[in-house]
Amino acid sequence: MSDNPVSPKKYAVGVDFGTESGRAVLVEVATGREISTAVYPYKNGVIDERLPVDGAPVRLGPEWALQDPQDYIRTFQNTVPAVLAESGVDPADVIGVGIDFTACTMLPVKKDGTPLAGLPEYQRNPHAWVKLWKHHAAQPEANQLNETARAQGYKFLDRYGGKISSEWFVPKVMQILDEAPEIYTAADRFLEAADWVIWQLTGIESRNSCTAGYKALWSKREGYPPDDFYKALDPRLEHLVDEKLSRTIAPIGERVGGLTDQAAAWLGLRPGTAVAVANVDAHVSVPAATVTAPGSMVMIMGTSTCHMLLGKEEHVVPGMCGYVEDGIIPGLFGYEAGQSCVGDHFAWFIENCVPGAYEREASARGISIHQLLEEKAGALRPGQSGLIALDWWNGNRSVLVDADLSGLLVGMTLATRPEELYRALIEATAYGTRVIIEAFNEYNVPVKELIATGGLPDKNRLLMQIYADVTGMEIRVAAAKQTPALGSAMFGAVAAGKAAGGYDTIVEASQKMAHLRPDEVYRPNLEAKKVYDHLFAEYRLLHDTFGRGANDVMKRLKKLKAEVLES
Amino acid sequence: MSDNPVSPKKYAVGVDFGTESGRAVLVEVATGREISTAVYPYKNGVIDERLPVDGAPVRLGPEWALQDPQDYIRTFQNTVPAVLAESGVDPADVIGVGIDFTACTMLPVKKDGTPLAGLPEYQRNPHAWVKLWKHHAAQPEANQLNETARAQGYKFLDRYGGKISSEWFVPKVMQILDEAPEIYTAADRFLEAADWVIWQLTGIESRNSCTAGYKALWSKREGYPPDDFYKALDPRLEHLVDEKLSRTIAPIGERVGGLTDQAAAWLGLRPGTAVAVANVDAHVSVPAATVTAPGSMVMIMGTSTCHMLLGKEEHVVPGMCGYVEDGIIPGLFGYEAGQSCVGDHFAWFIENCVPGAYEREASARGISIHQLLEEKAGALRPGQSGLIALDWWNGNRSVLVDADLSGLLVGMTLATRPEELYRALIEATAYGTRVIIEAFNEYNVPVKELIATGGLPDKNRLLMQIYADVTGMEIRVAAAKQTPALGSAMFGAVAAGKAAGGYDTIVEASQKMAHLRPDEVYRPNLEAKKVYDHLFAEYRLLHDTFGRGANDVMKRLKKLKAEVLES
Repeated sequence: MSDNPVSPKKYAVGVDFGTESGRAVLVEVATGREISTAVYPYKNGVIDERLPVDGAPVRLGPEWALQDPQDYIRTFQNTVPAVLAESGVDPADVIGVGIDFTACTMLPVKKDGTPLAGLPEYQRNPHAWVKLWKHHAAQPEANQLNETARAQGYKFLDRYGGKISSEWFVPKVMQILDEAPEIYTAADRFLEAADWVIWQLTGIESRNSCTAGYKALWSKREGYPPDDFYKALDPRLEHLVDEKLSRTIAPIGERVGGLTDQAAAWLGLRPGTAVAVANVDAHVSVPAATVTAPGSMVMIMGTSTCHMLLGKEEHVVPGMCGYVEDGIIPGLFGYEAGQSCVGDHFAWFIENCVPGAYEREASARGISIHQLLEEKAGALRPGQSGLIALDWWNGNRSVLVDADLSGLLVGMTLATRPEELYRALIEATAYGTRVIIEAFNEYNVPVKELIATGGLPDKNRLLMQIYADVTGMEIRVAAAKQTPALGSAMFGAVAAGKAAGGYDTIVEASQKMAHLRPDEVYRPNLEAKKVYDHLFAEYRLLHDTFGRGANDVMKRLKKLKAEVLES
Repeated sequence: MSDNPVSPKKYAVGVDFGTESGRAVLVEVATGREISTAVYPYKNGVIDERLPVDGAPVRLGPEWALQDPQDYIRTFQNTVPAVLAESGVDPADVIGVGIDFTACTMLPVKKDGTPLAGLPEYQRNPHAWVKLWKHHAAQPEANQLNETARAQGYKFLDRYGGKISSEWFVPKVMQILDEAPEIYTAADRFLEAADWVIWQLTGIESRNSCTAGYKALWSKREGYPPDDFYKALDPRLEHLVDEKLSRTIAPIGERVGGLTDQAAAWLGLRPGTAVAVANVDAHVSVPAATVTAPGSMVMIMGTSTCHMLLGKEEHVVPGMCGYVEDGIIPGLFGYEAGQSCVGDHFAWFIENCVPGAYEREASARGISIHQLLEEKAGALRPGQSGLIALDWWNGNRSVLVDADLSGLLVGMTLATRPEELYRALIEATAYGTRVIIEAFNEYNVPVKELIATGGLPDKNRLLMQIYADVTGMEIRVAAAKQTPALGSAMFGAVAAGKAAGGYDTIVEASQKMAHLRPDEVYRPNLEAKKVYDHLFAEYRLLHDTFGRGANDVMKRLKKLKAEVLES
């Protein structure tokens, strides 16, 4: 055991707060081995039709998506005691707790941390609730922010690919001010739900550098934009940062404090157990997928895909989601890009476009419709379908940063079969990934290998091979079943520190606790790559025609649709 | 009865030779009333995999489509006696027979009319059989013909929208010469199957002006192209017209002769019964849909759509299929355009893109999937789906004349539903029709009203309303259930002539025998028209981008597909 400085008897807990549920894992600190896991499906789930309140219904608008902060507390209460009970581990051997969250998922609270949604006088106002990452009703505010920043020449836009998303922190605050100024006034603080749950665990208000950097316009070197910028958005916002945020930002990888007595009782752990600075699901996944150095792009592939990459230097890469110094791994720039429609794309296809005959065939053979389509699509050769698609069913996050784009399919004939359409959609998402990789390479943040994690690599081997063939790069797969929760547990072990049986840095934790699957490597087929090079050139041409203004038909169709629905 | 010069006891027979079957109708000459009808599904149907011969199988290439000439004789034998028997009409009261056919559907025969396919020494050679209109294997020859005609400045191309289709007569002859010179040599005559069946009925070889004009480069004023043109295609073709065709062309609306004894026995009619010059299904439908004058466009809407229009003057309209003097109605120019994928488009969608849940819903409600989709799509408003399509799943016949184009769909989101895609496909075919109407109007062949016939108007009222809304024109519907067969019977009555109880001209026959449905008029909704004007502008833009060379991705994808399949 001399080569292992960490006691094998120490454990860490990671809690991953997702869109529909929260999940805890209990992990062995020395090896990263997952001992037990438990999931809590949020009682109130995604609130997108009406508020979960008594009395007359309070309905929400079409682009709204809220959550209930009490669901986060219930997640702690339901999952952490469960993983302890299942494992039989002594709470005294649990040295640290880390959490990761969706982002930007934010809420207004009182000075003591009480959510406005929990106060009777505010709970019937939708703006008092948690705005979930996919709350998309602040687009007018995002547009105003982007126009103001551009018009006044603020450089911070460059860090975000030139455009701020309506999903992010400031547009969401602006929407509250615009539509519910009484909630804006009543809120002593606005903060990420990620930081709010850490406050509930430790009694200490903190703001993590990851969401501050990626979602709230903060940077380590420049801090927040100046008050004049907020004033230009709305005079009432001039002192937003000092009045309702904080200029003190906690670097990821640090310890916020220890569990309070109350929180320790919720979790079934010892008071004082180390609690890490909050983090974001995609970002904790990077060290949990073994990556703590430049060159390896982590693709977190699920309903959407996040592409995470580290760099030693600061480079502006047009159309990426953002880059933040120390945002993923202390000492490095963390670059993020994304595709907003990947697994969702295939789910849409299967729900809307697969004929009954295929359902019956799958059922007769005792396989899923996904398996049947993968089999049929897998029998096709690259280029054989004569189809190509633009994968913008949910807009384009990188590199065009345009939610108003939509899908395109070209090449259909009367002989086109469902599996050909399905394969074309998979290929389109692979081309979208290649666009992102090429953008990083072109702007001097090199991508040398690909590491996949998330739900898709397990579900669809054909997809993984197509990605290897389209990109011409090897793809390896992270070993963890729950990569974000493992990453959170790793940060918990770092918060505890080496003296307590943990680690002093996330790099060390990653070396010991994170692993790749030893036998699963997708290697590019060079014949396929050659065909895909032709198809990718076509994708590029369509991408630029429909995505860069030569033909804005997608935007005009969306505008006409909105007008028709309003008339 | 004084206002009706025609005895009510006289009848005419029309036989319509389709792709899969032949149909006879017995019609009352005075009124056009259909007395009885019978269908014969061809024993050998469309021959597109292997020849119906004994011994080792003779397989066909991918774009081949043949027919068996004996199926036409069997059609006469099976249907005409049946309509007589069903009606109880005395054969002595049947004054004339007319036929219409698909075109160009052609075959090689010996001097006496014997098809080479019927001779043991040739029957195992695919080139000995009837080449059906949709035989598409002569594209290289069509390309060569077009290049040669363009390079040498032949003006006749103008009459055909600038391009000859691979479906037409000369490319099919050229393919025989290229691939089976022994069949070319053995053939004393090449002719349309339409003319061949008239030969079988009358013992007289004739060539009708309709197919000669629309499919074989002949015109009333100029005749065939000069021998030098054929020589330029291939020296062996120099004397094609004089050796294997004929310069004597029979105008439609005339009588070829009377039934031979043998043919009278096949049909159960009297020897000597008048037989009309052969005609084409789409073209006989025009007077059968009441149209014998300029201004009214007849849309024959089925798996594909033919647009037929009359004009007093000769005008070159770019991208139309062709115009022929006396080609539809003597004394007028007959203009033809087409869309190659209409009903086929919806059939493809229903086979490949409708989810099992919709099939179950339709089945539970006891309606067809077509009805369910029409109901759901009918509940949408124009522009609401945010979708637009290019209706080129089977290439574009007018006005781009390009079989290598393919389908395009744009505007999909994760909220897009099957009925929205379905409606977008219907709308796309309506835009395609509007492009054709605008081309005719622009080039001085005015379109003032629309008259629909064919299978689609009965099947889909939503489609008819969308066509009215997109074009901004009223659409009325022909009353006949079997418009081509009625048209053929009308030409039979004209072949018999007024003295025999028929008519002297097709215009008179049309006035008495053809009718519109009195209560079925689709009137444009002006609000819908306004939205569709916007969408049509988008269609135009995509149409020109992908159809006129700005982005030839469709052709490149087809080429890549062919290369992949060959490799």
